[in-house]
Amino acid sequence: MANRVTPRLQDYSQWYLDVVNGAGLAENSEVRGCMVIKPHGYAIWEKMQRALDQMFKETGHVNAYFPLLIPKSFLEKEEDMAEGFAKECAVVTHYRLKSVPGRGLIVDPEAKLAEELIVRPTSETIIWNTYRDWIQSYRDLPLLINQWANVVRWEMRTRLFLRTAEFLWQEGHTAHATQMEAEDEARQMLEVYRTFAEDWMAMPVITGTKSEGQKFPGAVYTLCIEAMMQDRRALQAGTSHFLGQNFAKAFDVKFQNQEGTLDYAWATSWGVSTRLIGGLVMTHSDDQGLVLPPRVAPIQVVIVPLGRTDEERKATVAESQSLAATLHALPRHEFFGYEPLKIKIDTDFDKSPGFRFNEWELRGVPVRVEIGPKDIATNTCVLARRDIPGKEGKRAGVPLAAASAHIIELLKQLQADLFDKASRFRDTNSYEVNSYAEFREKIENQGGFLWAHWDGTQETEERIAAETKATIRCVPFNQPNEPGKCMVTGKPSKGRVVFSKAY
Amino acid sequence: MANRVTPRLQDYSQWYLDVVNGAGLAENSEVRGCMVIKPHGYAIWEKMQRALDQMFKETGHVNAYFPLLIPKSFLEKEEDMAEGFAKECAVVTHYRLKSVPGRGLIVDPEAKLAEELIVRPTSETIIWNTYRDWIQSYRDLPLLINQWANVVRWEMRTRLFLRTAEFLWQEGHTAHATQMEAEDEARQMLEVYRTFAEDWMAMPVITGTKSEGQKFPGAVYTLCIEAMMQDRRALQAGTSHFLGQNFAKAFDVKFQNQEGTLDYAWATSWGVSTRLIGGLVMTHSDDQGLVLPPRVAPIQVVIVPLGRTDEERKATVAESQSLAATLHALPRHEFFGYEPLKIKIDTDFDKSPGFRFNEWELRGVPVRVEIGPKDIATNTCVLARRDIPGKEGKRAGVPLAAASAHIIELLKQLQADLFDKASRFRDTNSYEVNSYAEFREKIENQGGFLWAHWDGTQETEERIAAETKATIRCVPFNQPNEPGKCMVTGKPSKGRVVFSKAY
Repeated sequence: MANRVTPRLQDYSQWYLDVVNGAGLAENSEVRGCMVIKPHGYAIWEKMQRALDQMFKETGHVNAYFPLLIPKSFLEKEEDMAEGFAKECAVVTHYRLKSVPGRGLIVDPEAKLAEELIVRPTSETIIWNTYRDWIQSYRDLPLLINQWANVVRWEMRTRLFLRTAEFLWQEGHTAHATQMEAEDEARQMLEVYRTFAEDWMAMPVITGTKSEGQKFPGAVYTLCIEAMMQDRRALQAGTSHFLGQNFAKAFDVKFQNQEGTLDYAWATSWGVSTRLIGGLVMTHSDDQGLVLPPRVAPIQVVIVPLGRTDEERKATVAESQSLAATLHALPRHEFFGYEPLKIKIDTDFDKSPGFRFNEWELRGVPVRVEIGPKDIATNTCVLARRDIPGKEGKRAGVPLAAASAHIIELLKQLQADLFDKASRFRDTNSYEVNSYAEFREKIENQGGFLWAHWDGTQETEERIAAETKATIRCVPFNQPNEPGKCMVTGKPSKGRVVFSKAY
Repeated sequence: MANRVTPRLQDYSQWYLDVVNGAGLAENSEVRGCMVIKPHGYAIWEKMQRALDQMFKETGHVNAYFPLLIPKSFLEKEEDMAEGFAKECAVVTHYRLKSVPGRGLIVDPEAKLAEELIVRPTSETIIWNTYRDWIQSYRDLPLLINQWANVVRWEMRTRLFLRTAEFLWQEGHTAHATQMEAEDEARQMLEVYRTFAEDWMAMPVITGTKSEGQKFPGAVYTLCIEAMMQDRRALQAGTSHFLGQNFAKAFDVKFQNQEGTLDYAWATSWGVSTRLIGGLVMTHSDDQGLVLPPRVAPIQVVIVPLGRTDEERKATVAESQSLAATLHALPRHEFFGYEPLKIKIDTDFDKSPGFRFNEWELRGVPVRVEIGPKDIATNTCVLARRDIPGKEGKRAGVPLAAASAHIIELLKQLQADLFDKASRFRDTNSYEVNSYAEFREKIENQGGFLWAHWDGTQETEERIAAETKATIRCVPFNQPNEPGKCMVTGKPSKGRVVFSKAY
């Protein structure tokens, strides 16, 4: 059978599309730049949502929902936001169509809105306009609210999950009585994202601060998590913004503080989106298709009974059902988000074993159990791990009575191994560089994360971007205090920052 | 303290707004007809989503996500849908704003879309346009897909939850190889809705078929669940449509059937929305505020420690924490959707006990536990049930050691009692009427559900609606075979149908 996945080394972009398509994750719709998230892709998003939502709630946040449509004038109230999002807004101008014989449906010119509405590209404006009524006193603070929603940004060049005109996300919007509390919140939520990316997605990330040129419109500063994809480009995987009093001032949100005087509230916002699914695909998948870490896999285990005769099949299917029942009956465990394990039994005997194995590899199921007539004879089964294709990842002769315990261990091992493998890849492709010549050579020929000194000016950042297409991904946290000289201008630098080409 | 809720009998509409406002469920936004769903209201929606989603998955459905924006031409392809939704569409005509000095942001005339997009009012068109590529053979069927999403219908007269321009909902869209299978699906999903409404929301419903005049645009027929609110009006709480081959023909979705010939696929769609929260409020709440059935309550139990001195408070808080820990540690139970019980300890000693009790009554928490110094002395607590305010619903002297078991029993009892109470109210306000004079008198003076004979014509239905404002809620299932004569025209009728004024 021809391999349906283009090898990574042959054409990385096509490989990505083949994996997304082969696993049934998403496809382009007929609406420009908007994707259809197919059931297997959406099931991954549901797993992510559950885990993140739980973490948001454990840190004291509650969910709410604000309107999709935002009056144009709201956007105008915060200057950076108007500047940052005006160029990519879907604009609602009318509220009715009408039927005209011979012409079909046309926009009814009599149903023109007095003020245009934009489809939310992000919700700071409508939310802070609402907070004005909710915040009177320090007793009303902090407000710790999150929203799960769709947003629209009119992107010209789109790519499934990574950059789409409409995407799904969560956006946290918090209000605080003090600057310090808001800054702590922004940092805390970045840490939630780091934990989720590393512990659930098995995707190692660098945490740090965006440069001025890369920060969110309306933010005082932006914190981010940055991951490395298998083509050694960076993916910005989540951001957490300290917004200062910018939105409180724009929307006149004042409160009486403990001293009895009026002050503007302090704000943060933070978000991750369906883009994470693209990051997940590009972090772990291989030339056989999708590879999923068990904690975000919609199906953790597929059991494939084998056999040629009806009698053989009856026996292997019965053993498969018995194993599935044992796995289902296991106590719910924090590792799987307190959800029952999802087990699939593949009884599609019309297709060859090889074809069936291949299908589940394409779809990224972490562990495959094979039960054939020979296994039945010895009361054993074969366990195959998705992350190590072929014989090397197979273990035969596992006693059926001990299979469920082995499977749980294997799932945990696989989760840890995927993280380790991705970490090694990232570290292998990270370099300290000390001259601009070396920088250009490395970016051109190898890619990866380049740790280099920079003088801190937007001018130098822009020059580097123009000349190499590499951008500053972040000024990383927790770096040793190592002052140096900017590789381009020779001016003083406080420490190395991370450069990379990026999605 | 003045009661913050207008009594039902004084002003029902104001009572509803007071309950929604007092409980912190939702408020109007500055965007016409769009509401903000506040944290307590959204938490109810989350409970509903969890339970419904579980039921959808148990009946074989999976979730997916389709674009928010739909090309205008898609709507035109199905005539009834164009007719039904064109008058209430939000229309996106441009994809960019631009900044003009002195005028702020304006719609960029150079960014006009070649074809306008509408914000989905419902997704049959975009989904069936997608299904065309997904369905080739009977082996691809059935497709059993659900979507959780927001939709926009430009309503002129809106009311929180019950009728809003934007609302949240789920929409199931299934494709089948045979008519019978699709009809079974439509009926099955109505049964899921009935079960959810009655077993989770404790809201009794009548199931049946809509008349031709009331069916969904594009449907062959529409099934519905209808509930009675406390002002004796009907609320359509959920619908399930058999769409025949209408959308398959409009979008050319053909498949090869088992006989090897091409056929159009058969369709259903079905949905419930945040409107259900309005129904929940109007079914159970009273003049003290919100009343919630335990299975959809975001907080099931509030524990209120009492005491005047620090020493007393320390003791009652410690007992409260101990009881909460015991309740938390109970095994997860199907009755609560396998989620841990949500317990709140109210330590706001600055406010009087009466004020604190009142607050939690306003918010609809089903069971309140009071622990005061006298209770500590006797190792007991007081349990108060929300559905029976005042002394009658209080039970003192409950041993603390047995409190958690009592609370679980009480929550189950309360769930059952709310359903029984609402059923009695509905039955008390349902009448068989046999003449149009009696019908008009009853509708005018008493309201409720009137079971009457009707000749089956749209003409008579419209006359009744024009003269009395009552509409046919449904032709109910499972009625005794009782032919009769139409109360208006005297023409033959196959059985009684249910009339009511409705939301």
